[in-house]
Amino acid sequence: MKVAIVGATGYGGIELIRLLRQHRHVSELSVFSSSQAGTNYDDIYPHVQDIYQGVLKSVDAHQLADEYDVIFVSAPPGVAAELMEYLIDGQAKVIDLSGDFRLLDGSIYEDWYGRPAAKSSLVEKAVYGLSEWNREEIEKAKLIANPGCYPTAVLLGLAPLANDNVIDTSTLIIDAKSGTTGAGKNPSEMTHFAEMNDSLKVYKVNQHKHTPEIEQQLEQWIGTKEPITFTPHLVPMSRGIMATMYAKVSDSLTKTKVEQIYRDAYEKTPFVRINSSRYPATKEVYGSNFTNISYHLDERTGRITVISVIDNLVKGAAGQAIQNMNLMQGFEETEGLWAMPVYP
Amino acid sequence: MKVAIVGATGYGGIELIRLLRQHRHVSELSVFSSSQAGTNYDDIYPHVQDIYQGVLKSVDAHQLADEYDVIFVSAPPGVAAELMEYLIDGQAKVIDLSGDFRLLDGSIYEDWYGRPAAKSSLVEKAVYGLSEWNREEIEKAKLIANPGCYPTAVLLGLAPLANDNVIDTSTLIIDAKSGTTGAGKNPSEMTHFAEMNDSLKVYKVNQHKHTPEIEQQLEQWIGTKEPITFTPHLVPMSRGIMATMYAKVSDSLTKTKVEQIYRDAYEKTPFVRINSSRYPATKEVYGSNFTNISYHLDERTGRITVISVIDNLVKGAAGQAIQNMNLMQGFEETEGLWAMPVYP
Amino acid sequence: MKVAIVGATGYGGIELIRLLRQHRHVSELSVFSSSQAGTNYDDIYPHVQDIYQGVLKSVDAHQLADEYDVIFVSAPPGVAAELMEYLIDGQAKVIDLSGDFRLLDGSIYEDWYGRPAAKSSLVEKAVYGLSEWNREEIEKAKLIANPGCYPTAVLLGLAPLANDNVIDTSTLIIDAKSGTTGAGKNPSEMTHFAEMNDSLKVYKVNQHKHTPEIEQQLEQWIGTKEPITFTPHLVPMSRGIMATMYAKVSDSLTKTKVEQIYRDAYEKTPFVRINSSRYPATKEVYGSNFTNISYHLDERTGRITVISVIDNLVKGAAGQAIQNMNLMQGFEETEGLWAMPVYP
Amino acid sequence: MKVAIVGATGYGGIELIRLLRQHRHVSELSVFSSSQAGTNYDDIYPHVQDIYQGVLKSVDAHQLADEYDVIFVSAPPGVAAELMEYLIDGQAKVIDLSGDFRLLDGSIYEDWYGRPAAKSSLVEKAVYGLSEWNREEIEKAKLIANPGCYPTAVLLGLAPLANDNVIDTSTLIIDAKSGTTGAGKNPSEMTHFAEMNDSLKVYKVNQHKHTPEIEQQLEQWIGTKEPITFTPHLVPMSRGIMATMYAKVSDSLTKTKVEQIYRDAYEKTPFVRINSSRYPATKEVYGSNFTNISYHLDERTGRITVISVIDNLVKGAAGQAIQNMNLMQGFEETEGLWAMPVYP
Repeated sequence: MKVAIVGATGYGGIELIRLLRQHRHVSELSVFSSSQAGTNYDDIYPHVQDIYQGVLKSVDAHQLADEYDVIFVSAPPGVAAELMEYLIDGQAKVIDLSGDFRLLDGSIYEDWYGRPAAKSSLVEKAVYGLSEWNREEIEKAKLIANPGCYPTAVLLGLAPLANDNVIDTSTLIIDAKSGTTGAGKNPSEMTHFAEMNDSLKVYKVNQHKHTPEIEQQLEQWIGTKEPITFTPHLVPMSRGIMATMYAKVSDSLTKTKVEQIYRDAYEKTPFVRINSSRYPATKEVYGSNFTNISYHLDERTGRITVISVIDNLVKGAAGQAIQNMNLMQGFEETEGLWAMPVYP
Repeated sequence: MKVAIVGATGYGGIELIRLLRQHRHVSELSVFSSSQAGTNYDDIYPHVQDIYQGVLKSVDAHQLADEYDVIFVSAPPGVAAELMEYLIDGQAKVIDLSGDFRLLDGSIYEDWYGRPAAKSSLVEKAVYGLSEWNREEIEKAKLIANPGCYPTAVLLGLAPLANDNVIDTSTLIIDAKSGTTGAGKNPSEMTHFAEMNDSLKVYKVNQHKHTPEIEQQLEQWIGTKEPITFTPHLVPMSRGIMATMYAKVSDSLTKTKVEQIYRDAYEKTPFVRINSSRYPATKEVYGSNFTNISYHLDERTGRITVISVIDNLVKGAAGQAIQNMNLMQGFEETEGLWAMPVYP
Repeated sequence: MKVAIVGATGYGGIELIRLLRQHRHVSELSVFSSSQAGTNYDDIYPHVQDIYQGVLKSVDAHQLADEYDVIFVSAPPGVAAELMEYLIDGQAKVIDLSGDFRLLDGSIYEDWYGRPAAKSSLVEKAVYGLSEWNREEIEKAKLIANPGCYPTAVLLGLAPLANDNVIDTSTLIIDAKSGTTGAGKNPSEMTHFAEMNDSLKVYKVNQHKHTPEIEQQLEQWIGTKEPITFTPHLVPMSRGIMATMYAKVSDSLTKTKVEQIYRDAYEKTPFVRINSSRYPATKEVYGSNFTNISYHLDERTGRITVISVIDNLVKGAAGQAIQNMNLMQGFEETEGLWAMPVYP
Repeated sequence: MKVAIVGATGYGGIELIRLLRQHRHVSELSVFSSSQAGTNYDDIYPHVQDIYQGVLKSVDAHQLADEYDVIFVSAPPGVAAELMEYLIDGQAKVIDLSGDFRLLDGSIYEDWYGRPAAKSSLVEKAVYGLSEWNREEIEKAKLIANPGCYPTAVLLGLAPLANDNVIDTSTLIIDAKSGTTGAGKNPSEMTHFAEMNDSLKVYKVNQHKHTPEIEQQLEQWIGTKEPITFTPHLVPMSRGIMATMYAKVSDSLTKTKVEQIYRDAYEKTPFVRINSSRYPATKEVYGSNFTNISYHLDERTGRITVISVIDNLVKGAAGQAIQNMNLMQGFEETEGLWAMPVYP
């Protein structure tokens, strides 16, 4: 199988390469970049020296559409939307890691992203790639809108409760914390080491563009639309997301029932690990495709606290993208992804 | 003024020494420790070499009561409760940094702390030392129950809203994050560098003993008792607490009104800084007694998000204790505390 | 192939499990621990939940000797020395990650380790497992003394120069820096997060027990014995060692010649990467078995500066141990180890 | 006393403000910046909100020369050289934190800095501000060339040995490690959090411009010129420099003698702390003007290892600059600087 990565120089791109190298069905792995075509990949990322000898190629939509089986697009907003107009008729299946095809309603996209939405005819063709909950559609998809890092952590944590309709989403609060690779590879004041080290930051309160992505999926599960409260924070660590989520539960919800709901939801999914007798830490999934979920029902307040932990670059980006590729191509779901977290 | 620190070898103790050295009215500063009496302080903390030559003395309650003007107790739970039986009749004013005298209801103390409460006759004499909101009582106090680190950040953030009765406390969620000095000086697996570095942890979900302390104060302000949801996290940094707090607001609450409420509450308090056009970071108060507060009213959800940031060892412990001493002794409130945060 | 890990609960042990899980010739992987026999491995290390279901067994030397093909011993000093008396006659090949069999001269061992040396009859049977430089002996070995983490970084960096006899070892200075996992899993004041974070420490100046290990190997290469200066430092990071090494060079040594010496030495070794047009960083080998080496000849001073970088838990421990197993068993040298570093 | 800071927006500038605010003889503190004139200082550095209300003024050399008593220049290379042509005839004393006036030989400056040197007539007027060793000249100076951060740590560590002529400088190796604030406030790939966190880097091997600064001072002390080997490293921490230094010693040098040399050298200097029964850590001087020095004579190798630790922004920049101001103005040497390190 021939695989292409468009926008291969970002942190999502390098993680795709790391994981795809381990994938037994990938025979060729090519990297593309508009801005750095002609550059040896190991000149940008010296840690790949002697392991990956790719040279960045310039992006040619027609060539991509014809020559590859699967194309991952890991580029800034808008790139995939434009490229997809050509790729849609090619043979290649496409997995887009940006937000271009995630929001069904173009006007909501434009409100939150502050830029024109992709053509609705393309958005309609995209399948939202939350692997554990959209498996059947993913298997048949031509185009995957790979979920955002925060939505992945949040939705995997909430899905069992939302699908069983045992929480009141009008009371839902999501307090999310991320390592700084989520902010990308470009140096900025916010992620300058001296400014970020030994410090905790909050940002984009009520304004993060992953908010409508979470709302849209919850609405599909629950049937009613509720605005949620979502707050992202930046933690002085490289990788990892923890989402701490709060909601009022139905009066009838017992601890036994919650346990059963989560067990039923995830007993057959290899990458979701439930454990409510312990408190999770982001390091426990470092470098891996796992999601660790813990939940705590509080009788004093009638609320449930759900904690969901992922590696933002793996399950929150490259790993889930490959998991989706596995589903689309009929491979073992864990192929290339069944590595143990790197600990400590 | 002669000052004693009992339990001087913990992180609260060393921070008291750092700050009291700068205090113009402290003429003598003695350190006490039951377990390490006789040890030179700079053998434990080499960073004080050539600056502070104290030798740890063994704790003798009668001597303490007679010889010092102010005694800070920065010891494990129970030490202050026992010591206070002797100190209560001495000349010294006492500021206790433990939780021994914070909870008015002994049975609640015993539920959350899992140990016997202090004598209620002593607890009744204690004044809760939230400097900005209890000023008058503090000025007249003999015994101060210095607030916990989390409650300080939380209560300073919520006080204006609670006192103006514009939030629905039954919807209150507090998601708090702390640096690891909050867990103290004793090595443990949880705070082992290799386990904590590059990782974010959640702990004691719905079970942290600062929960009833927050509830008790909110009840005093609002008049009704509501159980709250409080979740502490451990962040890979040395110092700093950020509390992110969420509540439904009264329908009539406007941005202009919120602004006015916070401005009115804190315009005369030197250590609280309000800024809602920016997002705070813990580093902005590092090493200082400041509390930075930011609030964000969200019309979509009808909720307010309040973010409050302190240095847990300063405003969350030693700094507020000294601020209280200043109030009790009639000194300038900022004496010894008016240093700029160490940045970056 | 059946593999056992004795002393499996330390950081070396968990890294062996992570890597051996990826190894295609390992059919059974058992874990042993004297102190924690009966415990589920994932109760100690929750990050292995649902991936590795091993239960710690108590250590029985006879059973070990009979039932396993390869035994890794990753235990405190002395354990392997004792165990080996039984294992030496069994079928299993043994790879010891401690220092028990590294030093040929028992009196030197006793000076630096402060404890009795292993029987010399056993030490004589051990092969020093510096994979790149001892390949032929390793292939035939029954017992491997796996090199220490610092010596691995140091010796791989110096070996080409020492073997070509182009440096004056009497001028050799080794300034080494390690992440804290090198100090092991047991919490201590030195590695308490609040003490180690945002700080750089030096320790055991001229007293680290890896010093004679380096000297012994250099003597074998060069033919004369020289005491070296070796200084270890602790860096606020989890993994990684950087050794910065300095020596006077022969007058005749040119840049071209140095280049050739390193190229010749390492052109066929998959895990050593030479690059002198860049400066290495420990992150570039994170989680991998690579050694990155850079050298800089300074005409002003007549010295060469060699910089060598490894992941202390992989090439400095578990990875090199598995590399040695591959050599001993006739497997592909890179089997189970050919993963890309986790970056960033 | 009226004080001006030119180039006040860098990390050196903010540290000058933090420390000068505590100085009892500073009645006015003005900040200047060519590029950001008109900006409120707390818009750039929110941690100074409500404490320092300065507004950045544009740089006017004549005005500066006339209106201020002391001017600190904390600007990029070349700025002070140009400005000084006007300031030299004004009333203000000038302390330059850049390298413009440190190197007496303009051609050496041009080799290492890659830009034109300052006028030699100005350079000749500058006094090298290594406070502990140049006290008398500093007291009479009009213009101070404040030492670089690395040279400060290095020279304070070596000075007693060099002045007593007990080391062979031809064998001198300096392995230096710095926190990232030394690289300044501008975001870059090298100091991007995700690239720097959990990583150790080496840079500018044999090429750092602080090398000739160290050589020049050693030559003045010893009388002969020797090229030294100097290697800087970047450590994942915000502040702190540790210099580990190695040299062969005279045969006659005993431990007792070394002790006496260091004691004699520093018994009257308040900011240098000698301790050779412990190993120093950078955190022990965090935020303070102290230098911690430890030395270890190794009989096996005939070498001494000297370890010197400073906070690069304080003793390595702003703190030493103020110490020099105190000497120039006849104030107490410790004025404004006698704070305890912030620990932990």
